[in-house]
Amino acid sequence: MKFICTQENLKKGLSLVSHLAGKNQNLPILNNVLLEVKNGLLCLSTTNLEIGIKTKVRGKVEREGSLTVPAKIFSDYIQSIRGEKIELIAKENNLEIKTENSETVLKGLDYSEFPLIPEIEKKYSATFTAEDLKEGLSLVLFATASDTARPEISGVLFNFNKDKLVLAATDSYRLAEKIINIRTNIEANKKIIIPLFTLQELNRLIGEIEKKQEIIMNINDNQVSFENDTTVMISRITEGEYPDYKHIIPQTEKTKATLNRILFQQSIKAASLFCRQGINDISLFFYKDKVEIRALNDQLGESKTFVEGKIEGEKNQIIFNYHYLLDVLSSLNDSEIIIKINNPETPGLLIPAKRSDYLYIIMPIKQ
Amino acid sequence: MKFICTQENLKKGLSLVSHLAGKNQNLPILNNVLLEVKNGLLCLSTTNLEIGIKTKVRGKVEREGSLTVPAKIFSDYIQSIRGEKIELIAKENNLEIKTENSETVLKGLDYSEFPLIPEIEKKYSATFTAEDLKEGLSLVLFATASDTARPEISGVLFNFNKDKLVLAATDSYRLAEKIINIRTNIEANKKIIIPLFTLQELNRLIGEIEKKQEIIMNINDNQVSFENDTTVMISRITEGEYPDYKHIIPQTEKTKATLNRILFQQSIKAASLFCRQGINDISLFFYKDKVEIRALNDQLGESKTFVEGKIEGEKNQIIFNYHYLLDVLSSLNDSEIIIKINNPETPGLLIPAKRSDYLYIIMPIKQ
Repeated sequence: MKFICTQENLKKGLSLVSHLAGKNQNLPILNNVLLEVKNGLLCLSTTNLEIGIKTKVRGKVEREGSLTVPAKIFSDYIQSIRGEKIELIAKENNLEIKTENSETVLKGLDYSEFPLIPEIEKKYSATFTAEDLKEGLSLVLFATASDTARPEISGVLFNFNKDKLVLAATDSYRLAEKIINIRTNIEANKKIIIPLFTLQELNRLIGEIEKKQEIIMNINDNQVSFENDTTVMISRITEGEYPDYKHIIPQTEKTKATLNRILFQQSIKAASLFCRQGINDISLFFYKDKVEIRALNDQLGESKTFVEGKIEGEKNQIIFNYHYLLDVLSSLNDSEIIIKINNPETPGLLIPAKRSDYLYIIMPIKQ
Repeated sequence: MKFICTQENLKKGLSLVSHLAGKNQNLPILNNVLLEVKNGLLCLSTTNLEIGIKTKVRGKVEREGSLTVPAKIFSDYIQSIRGEKIELIAKENNLEIKTENSETVLKGLDYSEFPLIPEIEKKYSATFTAEDLKEGLSLVLFATASDTARPEISGVLFNFNKDKLVLAATDSYRLAEKIINIRTNIEANKKIIIPLFTLQELNRLIGEIEKKQEIIMNINDNQVSFENDTTVMISRITEGEYPDYKHIIPQTEKTKATLNRILFQQSIKAASLFCRQGINDISLFFYKDKVEIRALNDQLGESKTFVEGKIEGEKNQIIFNYHYLLDVLSSLNDSEIIIKINNPETPGLLIPAKRSDYLYIIMPIKQ
């Protein structure tokens, strides 16, 4: 194998794939990136056996061939060198890396040991923009259960519904639901669960691409892929049935507060310094034209902050874990949000004031 | 006590003092900041018993008085609230903090428990600019021994010499010496050793002030202070005699290389990926018109990078710990540096190409 490309192209390709290659003591080949020079391109692949990522690097093929080298050091080295043009030459299982002012040999492993990353039949697919997917993920991922005791909620529900895709995530204390626009031939009401780690990696990948780019998602019975013109990521789908959450969405409310998102967020951050450690409780009191945010801690003292806003309905109060509020308030971009509550014992609802594609339900802390 | 000031002034004062107040389980008062309202000002103080910092906050005194409150939460809270004007009111040992839209009570401790921070007689003093002191510290602090087995080298030597102050630091593997300009009435050849931690705190403080500001240093037999018009920091001086290092500075060299600092630094970073872990060894080979930087690791492979430059004298080679090179190369701002060596067994010297106020000696790794 012999391949010549720019440092920039190679650096970019490695930044997409090398993160997934870890420090696997039992299976060292998983720490490596697979280099395949064929069909006029260099293809870079990494996998952790649950997820695989492949990306294409443009350049000049002088001799086809394949090998694997440790991903982290290869990526770090390519980032640290200077020189516009890089030559990559396989010498048995070693990779020679040459620039105008450097000559380096990186020891590799035979490519035949590298696990095969499956291809997915492109029969059922959905298309969305990188921007829409990124916004969708950023508004639900934080609500996903991070422990794996209940695998079905340690992933995000993708519920296909004609030209809408409903993303939902919950850790059983709060639930987030976001609707994004898609074009698809996937049957209406098809539901799949995609593991949290897959979507965290996907979120990282789409952070590196142009936001108007289209991303195509392909699914089959137990696998899913996300791809654009250079890169594809493949993952298993979580088996199991996602809990039916529609019945817990409050349909009416006794009190409705419309608040400036940033002022509300700042006030909660300030009050959070005085909450009880481990409980993280802050109280919200809804008055005629303002919300009072109160936290109390026997050792430290007590904090009260007032946020003015439009309050409709009854005087009311509720206690929330402040983390659940800050997660959503810091992920939204809207200038105003609405909180709807009924009483201190039942879930509250938080939505953007001016659009209807997102909702967030929070269980209260009962006194 | 009752005091009214802007959020900005109070935030700034707290950012200077609160870092020093730690999490002292045995002596909780050391986690607190002392607030003293008197003489038309609020004075904030913290101490860890080795160092004390005091700063003045401007505002309106309504009632004099003193108390102490936990420094970290007070500082975090003042940073997180909004509101131009802040009222601070002592109610017994509690501090009420009021703004237009918040009312908070922070529990404190009686000020009489707070350790007295001594004053230093202003008899022997030196004056320098914040900029000169900052540059001096940034070029020697990294070479200071961080273990305290030998207290005299886990501090920096301040050697006063009329209108020059020589700063020197060593961990016995490398030595840095920087000369800065001062105005002083301290006797010529006076030497004191200031603990590393004091200077790290000082470095942090001067990072927050305007670089042309003057800083006055006062010394007595066992204490030193650094102050500007609002803030003073006081520390003990380390007892003991600083090692006499003048005789280890190489006076001649067999090989002298003038190199671009940034290219040399990049090449060392790239090569460092291939050094042996724990040894951190990279080899430098001096040829007619370039230096080769080489690192070799049985598991990973081998890296060679070439940096062109002006090489005078003999062909030569030497092995260094790459950390010792990166520390100095990343702290200097000069575009060119000079390395002088004699042979692989004796120390090398690194200096800026165009000024003579700094030198750095590195012990080689012997083969």
